[in-house]
Amino acid sequence: MNLQPIAHIHSPFPEKFGVPRQSGLIEDLRAEVVFLPEFRVREAFRGLEGFSHLWLLWQFSQSPQGKWSPTVRPPRLGGNQRVGVFASRSPFRPNPLGLSCVALEAVNDQDPQGPKLLVRGADLVDGTPIFDVKPYLPQADCRPEATGGFAQDTPWAELQVEAPPALWETVPPETRQALAAVLAADPRPHYHKDPNRVYGMSFAGLEVKFTVDGPILRVQSIQKSS
Amino acid sequence: MNLQPIAHIHSPFPEKFGVPRQSGLIEDLRAEVVFLPEFRVREAFRGLEGFSHLWLLWQFSQSPQGKWSPTVRPPRLGGNQRVGVFASRSPFRPNPLGLSCVALEAVNDQDPQGPKLLVRGADLVDGTPIFDVKPYLPQADCRPEATGGFAQDTPWAELQVEAPPALWETVPPETRQALAAVLAADPRPHYHKDPNRVYGMSFAGLEVKFTVDGPILRVQSIQKSS
Repeated sequence: MNLQPIAHIHSPFPEKFGVPRQSGLIEDLRAEVVFLPEFRVREAFRGLEGFSHLWLLWQFSQSPQGKWSPTVRPPRLGGNQRVGVFASRSPFRPNPLGLSCVALEAVNDQDPQGPKLLVRGADLVDGTPIFDVKPYLPQADCRPEATGGFAQDTPWAELQVEAPPALWETVPPETRQALAAVLAADPRPHYHKDPNRVYGMSFAGLEVKFTVDGPILRVQSIQKSS
Repeated sequence: MNLQPIAHIHSPFPEKFGVPRQSGLIEDLRAEVVFLPEFRVREAFRGLEGFSHLWLLWQFSQSPQGKWSPTVRPPRLGGNQRVGVFASRSPFRPNPLGLSCVALEAVNDQDPQGPKLLVRGADLVDGTPIFDVKPYLPQADCRPEATGGFAQDTPWAELQVEAPPALWETVPPETRQALAAVLAADPRPHYHKDPNRVYGMSFAGLEVKFTVDGPILRVQSIQKSS
């Protein structure tokens, strides 16, 4: 079956580094779903604002295509334990389809590119192609009885974020909370431990450099992306 | 993006008639996910049995391709009210991808066609192509705070199923509970009201004929499919 993108996401992450490991982890993260001209049809969204959450079905466009591996090493397990690809949400799947639940903040149909969807908690890189948007149906999709295998036994460790106030002031106010939450979620790939390593992350037009020593993340510099 | 099926479902529904309107509505419904030979790799399923629920991403193969409509009439609203296609789970979408949450009963790797997945609560027609299987992650996928727009205000009406005991005895014991639940869920398309109309449904190798008068569904005959 051949899929055509219907939309792309506009998110603060130009690269994969820093993207939350799951949707919904960071509700302060805002993103916009911008549809291709063919789908900018107001009628197609009628009733959508009555739903608090949506599913996005999207393409793992940042991962090499045509490759899949029977086992993967999920970051949640520290990156050194293998599980089956079908027991994971890894991008290295036979069909590179991503599935994310996001909160719907608003349907913006005033914009010339509208209707656009303003969502929260997305774990998608900027520009990711989206194939479908579906309402989250609590009766069908929310299963409080569900148990989650290995994932539920290993909560994410939150880091304590420290930054000189003067540096923090350079971050636009509307970006601060989201940036702090992204850093607290530990954006390092897999399990890194070197306290001297300086990491760089692009976020919302900023280049953020930081180090991590144990549970403390120290912001070293924040500059506008060139 | 081009998708290749990785599996097909073996379900009791040779046709769309009677398929539950949502996944998870009828937990007594059993189905099997049978993978294509390339994906019959035990390793690819390692750890899957630790999850109680799965996502199936599949093709709306019963619906005409290449057609989408900005608005649809969901059966839950009686079939006569229009909502936007993106505010529905209708098959008539730009990309005909279905998304269903099913309970995982067992991973059968003893079968020559294994590993096969035995699932419950699927809302898929027999033979539906499946593009992906993902674990249901409670932390990411279960959102108790979610509210569901129009769908939550209109619960499904359950029918009372009546059948002569002798007729019921002709149904194989392992099929009875599921058949009764499918009938109770009211398999009629949209909102039909004619008490004289005889409906026919194919289910698990049986042809079931019934009428519906108000809240009562009366089974008229049950025969082996020819």
